[in-house]
Amino acid sequence: MTAESQTRAAHPPGSRTVRVPLGDRSYDIRIVHGDESGGFGPFAREALEATRAGRSCRSALVVTDSNVRALAARHAEALAAQGIAAEVAVVPPGEGSKSLEQAAELLDRLIALRADRHSAVVAVGGGVVGDLAGFVASTYARGIPLLMAPTTLLAQVDSSVGGKVGVNRPAAKNIVGAFHQPSGVWIDTRSLDTLPPRELRCGMAEVVKYGVILDPAFFEAVERAAAAVLALDPAAVAPVVARCCELKAGVVSEDEREETGLRAVLNFGHTIGHAVEAVAGYGGPFQHGEAVAAGMVAESRLAERLGWIDPGLTDRLSRLLRLLGLPTSAPGLDPRALIAAMTLDKKNAGGRIRFVLPRALGSVELTDAPAEGDVRAVLDELTAAD
Amino acid sequence: MTAESQTRAAHPPGSRTVRVPLGDRSYDIRIVHGDESGGFGPFAREALEATRAGRSCRSALVVTDSNVRALAARHAEALAAQGIAAEVAVVPPGEGSKSLEQAAELLDRLIALRADRHSAVVAVGGGVVGDLAGFVASTYARGIPLLMAPTTLLAQVDSSVGGKVGVNRPAAKNIVGAFHQPSGVWIDTRSLDTLPPRELRCGMAEVVKYGVILDPAFFEAVERAAAAVLALDPAAVAPVVARCCELKAGVVSEDEREETGLRAVLNFGHTIGHAVEAVAGYGGPFQHGEAVAAGMVAESRLAERLGWIDPGLTDRLSRLLRLLGLPTSAPGLDPRALIAAMTLDKKNAGGRIRFVLPRALGSVELTDAPAEGDVRAVLDELTAAD
Repeated sequence: MTAESQTRAAHPPGSRTVRVPLGDRSYDIRIVHGDESGGFGPFAREALEATRAGRSCRSALVVTDSNVRALAARHAEALAAQGIAAEVAVVPPGEGSKSLEQAAELLDRLIALRADRHSAVVAVGGGVVGDLAGFVASTYARGIPLLMAPTTLLAQVDSSVGGKVGVNRPAAKNIVGAFHQPSGVWIDTRSLDTLPPRELRCGMAEVVKYGVILDPAFFEAVERAAAAVLALDPAAVAPVVARCCELKAGVVSEDEREETGLRAVLNFGHTIGHAVEAVAGYGGPFQHGEAVAAGMVAESRLAERLGWIDPGLTDRLSRLLRLLGLPTSAPGLDPRALIAAMTLDKKNAGGRIRFVLPRALGSVELTDAPAEGDVRAVLDELTAAD
Repeated sequence: MTAESQTRAAHPPGSRTVRVPLGDRSYDIRIVHGDESGGFGPFAREALEATRAGRSCRSALVVTDSNVRALAARHAEALAAQGIAAEVAVVPPGEGSKSLEQAAELLDRLIALRADRHSAVVAVGGGVVGDLAGFVASTYARGIPLLMAPTTLLAQVDSSVGGKVGVNRPAAKNIVGAFHQPSGVWIDTRSLDTLPPRELRCGMAEVVKYGVILDPAFFEAVERAAAAVLALDPAAVAPVVARCCELKAGVVSEDEREETGLRAVLNFGHTIGHAVEAVAGYGGPFQHGEAVAAGMVAESRLAERLGWIDPGLTDRLSRLLRLLGLPTSAPGLDPRALIAAMTLDKKNAGGRIRFVLPRALGSVELTDAPAEGDVRAVLDELTAAD
């Protein structure tokens, strides 16, 4: 991977900027800790006007949920100070808002605001708000600019970068959507101060994933900084978030629309993880990050069975996940139900289950090599009573 | 305009092919009259597999309305004969089906079919079916291939070419959508045999438009062939449809996402036309093509007032439209209501109404030059009792 992304000169003081290189859809991720100097407004205006042939931005709909509506209101004021008339739309927190029906309400709100090509959507919140607001931006008037201000660790290191937006249908998650790159991403790590600890840990599962799939040195850095990150030490959190964004930017820039298979590396832990989430029940005992943590361990064991890695790597991964308070197994789930759920996964080709498995720390490969017996064995291990 | 499109060697015998040059989103429009040799299936398969990195196509949802469901069923059989398992979804005819709610039903149908990246959507019908099915294809799994088989003249010369897809909201038409280029367009002009004559005439309004905005020789050819086209003489219809597709392909290939302003030339007659349609009431006395016909005449008069053309051009345009049985005025409508409707048009910038006006036969220009008085004068003329 030729990671073209880079951490640029700090601006404003103390901030980091990661560039996502995507030709004329390139954009900046700005990472700050506490926006004392009022950087959000100028960043948003510049980002929103840099896209769409430099068209001026005159109005915005700020989409948020009730957990962070105060922050959204401050962002709306900052936009107004930049000459961008902003209104705030508050949706209920939780996955239920990621629906076509909720999207329709926001689209009607944009119509009522007479939003046009000089308007934008600004998402302030976690993954649900980002995916929903992004879908609205991708379809209103065939696409208007989108600014992401993710407030959860998971959204900051994962869902706000890469352009995937969408909503659920009752029978399938994330099935309706688009690739719609944001014009910019504003990450204030101070948002994490009010995040429930469980959600912080869930975000750390994706952080660990980046180390395993792409960057052994980063994996080691996370091992060293785990306690400081969980304690929200700004000096530890900011470089972790920035490196994850750089790593994801590198992948996305080489496979923007998930066509070459390269972007699939991001799915390490997710084949089994998604099955764990689905079988345990959405909103049940496993949040997404927790299911991915257990899935990474099981998939690492699967790589052992292929002879790709030695058990030491899986043990090291498990230790780090436990240190971060994440599960490494899913005792009590039905292995046959997990296999059935994986067989439905949309990334499969020709009926065989496809996995992204480690070849070494920092290197993974997309494969359908695992035999059914090996898959079953690691699922038995995963679901055995502790 | 450097029209890169071309009419290629006939294949199968008697057919015409127009290439839409859009880099890796390029596609063919195949124009036939009566598919005796069973060309649809092979064309569809080849077109659907040429896109998306040559991924094989294994299943398709054929979307149609009850007017042409028999044709859609034949197309589904032809797909099945190519190894593409096809089901037909029938929506009610009419603009009411161009809704998010109807799109949601079709998306759920795709989920039930377990559609994946090896699936496609095939639209068989007029503009409503094409726009709706195209929107579904653009959003399912973040975009799957789309094949268009337009059955109305309007859809054949206009809406099936160019990648604009979308649905309405109660408060705004076409406000939710995407740019999603089809993988291919299959035009069988024999479909026109069963089209209501009024719809045929409406399609001819857009045909005339292409001559005015881009091609004086084509305008003259339409003048000569008008009676033969209305009589559905295949020797007259096919070259007209093909030339319109070539002209639109040329515009779309230079401004795929309506960013440079070039694509705006297609809006000649539409600024006033849309207002006529809206003020008279959708589904009312003016169908879209009829409103555009009256709008073209009024906008041509506006160009006279700017001194851009002499009255002879407008008179010639009016004669041709009357010959085709199309209206050249909108007696009885309220000019103030028309102005109010135009002020809401999303193509305006900074409050002034923008028009695409002729500089000569075959050449138009986007402008906000018309003074309010001139606009009012042409609208008074447009709406005066005959």
